[in-house]
Amino acid sequence: MKKNVLIIGAGGVAQVVAHKCAQNNDVLGDIHIASRTLAKCEAILESVREKGAMKTEGVLAAHAVDAMDSAAVAALIRQTGAQIVINVGSAFVNMTVLDACIETGAAYIDTAIHEDPAKICETPPWYGNYEWKKRDLCAEKGVTAILGAGFDPGVVNAFARFAIDMMDEVKSIDIVDINAGSHGKYFATNFDPEINFREFTGTVYYWEDQQWKETSMFASGHDWDLPVVGTCRAYQSGHDEVHSLATNYPQADVRFWMGFGDHYINVFTVLQNLGLLSEQPVKTAEGLEVVPLKVVKAVLPDPSSLAPDYTGKTCIGDLVKGTKNGQPYEVFVYNVADHKEAYEEVGSQGISYTAGVPPVAAAMLVATGEWDAHTMKNVEELDPKPFFTLLDRIGLPTRVQIGGLGGTDMPWTQA
Amino acid sequence: MKKNVLIIGAGGVAQVVAHKCAQNNDVLGDIHIASRTLAKCEAILESVREKGAMKTEGVLAAHAVDAMDSAAVAALIRQTGAQIVINVGSAFVNMTVLDACIETGAAYIDTAIHEDPAKICETPPWYGNYEWKKRDLCAEKGVTAILGAGFDPGVVNAFARFAIDMMDEVKSIDIVDINAGSHGKYFATNFDPEINFREFTGTVYYWEDQQWKETSMFASGHDWDLPVVGTCRAYQSGHDEVHSLATNYPQADVRFWMGFGDHYINVFTVLQNLGLLSEQPVKTAEGLEVVPLKVVKAVLPDPSSLAPDYTGKTCIGDLVKGTKNGQPYEVFVYNVADHKEAYEEVGSQGISYTAGVPPVAAAMLVATGEWDAHTMKNVEELDPKPFFTLLDRIGLPTRVQIGGLGGTDMPWTQA
Repeated sequence: MKKNVLIIGAGGVAQVVAHKCAQNNDVLGDIHIASRTLAKCEAILESVREKGAMKTEGVLAAHAVDAMDSAAVAALIRQTGAQIVINVGSAFVNMTVLDACIETGAAYIDTAIHEDPAKICETPPWYGNYEWKKRDLCAEKGVTAILGAGFDPGVVNAFARFAIDMMDEVKSIDIVDINAGSHGKYFATNFDPEINFREFTGTVYYWEDQQWKETSMFASGHDWDLPVVGTCRAYQSGHDEVHSLATNYPQADVRFWMGFGDHYINVFTVLQNLGLLSEQPVKTAEGLEVVPLKVVKAVLPDPSSLAPDYTGKTCIGDLVKGTKNGQPYEVFVYNVADHKEAYEEVGSQGISYTAGVPPVAAAMLVATGEWDAHTMKNVEELDPKPFFTLLDRIGLPTRVQIGGLGGTDMPWTQA
Repeated sequence: MKKNVLIIGAGGVAQVVAHKCAQNNDVLGDIHIASRTLAKCEAILESVREKGAMKTEGVLAAHAVDAMDSAAVAALIRQTGAQIVINVGSAFVNMTVLDACIETGAAYIDTAIHEDPAKICETPPWYGNYEWKKRDLCAEKGVTAILGAGFDPGVVNAFARFAIDMMDEVKSIDIVDINAGSHGKYFATNFDPEINFREFTGTVYYWEDQQWKETSMFASGHDWDLPVVGTCRAYQSGHDEVHSLATNYPQADVRFWMGFGDHYINVFTVLQNLGLLSEQPVKTAEGLEVVPLKVVKAVLPDPSSLAPDYTGKTCIGDLVKGTKNGQPYEVFVYNVADHKEAYEEVGSQGISYTAGVPPVAAAMLVATGEWDAHTMKNVEELDPKPFFTLLDRIGLPTRVQIGGLGGTDMPWTQA
């Protein structure tokens, strides 16, 4: 049994994590939040207090820390007595925060793969480049590390596991992520633009016929007829969970599909073709060295500013195909979330909500011991049922369509 | 009679000006070229030498000068003995260079209106904001200043004057500027992107029914069926000559139409809507202050790099409507230029060629005395015929279609 949570990061997802931890502090204990900028942490605490989110009286505190400095993070873990660290900071700090957890014995939970700031869309094996190299050390020291416990990766890995457990054999996993909401701006990204665009600027890798195959962004599109949001076009994209699922289920094809409207694609294409999404500095006529992507980020709306006017729904799910009793068998496991409801509850838009609620559920399962694995795990390696039970209760209910998309629709508990 | 030319600027247009001055140094005397960056001037001189462009033996020299420093420009005028200054530097230096001419008595010729670097697309009265305030002083000191003597403004003002001289009464002047060439890049501007985009980011003013009217960029489009280049879509844009022509011919409607392809408009619209064309600095997450437009300029191809692969033609002309002998009368006066021929002759693309040849013709007319007005003039206030005669000879022949677009086509000399 572990308790006391240290949240690393103070962006839109961290805000959701803080609210959800506060709503469940009877299980989680003290809540600490730390980022480079103390004022951002304090603004989140203020929002938690405004909503009266703390379930019971308890500690709720903000700290300044440079998460690239592993020793500083370890010191903060010791200082706060945190036994669980939820890392929702920039994707560049995973390894320093993980090292601090291994050093102190705290459980580590994150929501996205580690990235090197100097590289874009690294090639497979993604988890193998950084995180998995620490797996033996985690096991040796008995440190729990749950990788990619957001929505995607995270809940979608659990969706896959749940569907696969219903089958004799799995043939394919197609993860479909649709944001059918509208933020009302000309253009905006739902996460930090620097991270958001980096997802789409490289080669798209997917797993088929037991090998890595390649395509390019927006080259492979498919119309998906989904519950609630209707027919939406999505394009194959690279995503963390393709790698871990392909490793754990090498016999299955694994693909990730992200929904994009024509307008998004047009803006993205213009920026990319002009070289404005580059992370390599250019020199202006006046001799100033500038990274174009950082300027694009500076002119785009702050993702957290989108929340108040965001309307509509997201639908994220896994279409899993295989066989059962010798017959073809299909299941679609999914969640639908609402932007406006998310904002009303925790002051964030639905994309941050779907990313921020799951790591809190994971933290609660570590606290109760159900997911306290004492080693490194990706989400599909853990029992999905207690996870779904908690998610149902704290805001992200799981539903299932038996027979595949458009099949018999029911809560996962009835499947 | 004046002689010895000082060219201010070392961009693509300055290169054309230098070549054309060299080709006519029997009339113009010594040729000096000056800009902030000496190496750019020297590269132009090298190109002039390579083509063997000097008609007779004579002075051809490069100088470094900060054209924002009026005293430095005046000192250089005195040092070189230049009696004619062709200002094809940035639009921000007009007033300092003009002041230096007034100070020294040298004739001043430019090709575009003065701009304040801190303002975009200033409102009417454009020439009235800066240049025309010096008109009385020019007259008092007997200083010749010819404003806007490029192609547009410049030759198109002479086209208007020529057509109007054929009529009893003028009703409308529509200037149409089509670049039907192709540079083969994803996207590029033909001039310095900083100046180029500034033309299109503000309100579009035009003169109709004896008053200023407003529209916005790309809102008012029209398909023009033009000689040689065929049917091209052009959009009302603000342009210097609309102001001077409306002042000199207030009874006529005056509109300027610039040709744009859908791709250009799309890229421009994306950049503008994102705020990337702004000249106001933004701050990156790392705290660096950057002007977005300067970053866009840094990632776009250098306009001078387009020349070697540029193919196709430009067509720029004036459709002038009025009455003659009580009957409606229409004339289209125009020039067609070829990108590849321009490159072969002077190492520049056609857009720079059409902008750079006319001020040299104007300088030659100042040298011979025909346009040595001893006061400030816009081009439509000067006799167009010697100008056309020279332009015919030095590379930009004028043609006329009597009856308007698609009418009887002939050289201007037969009209």
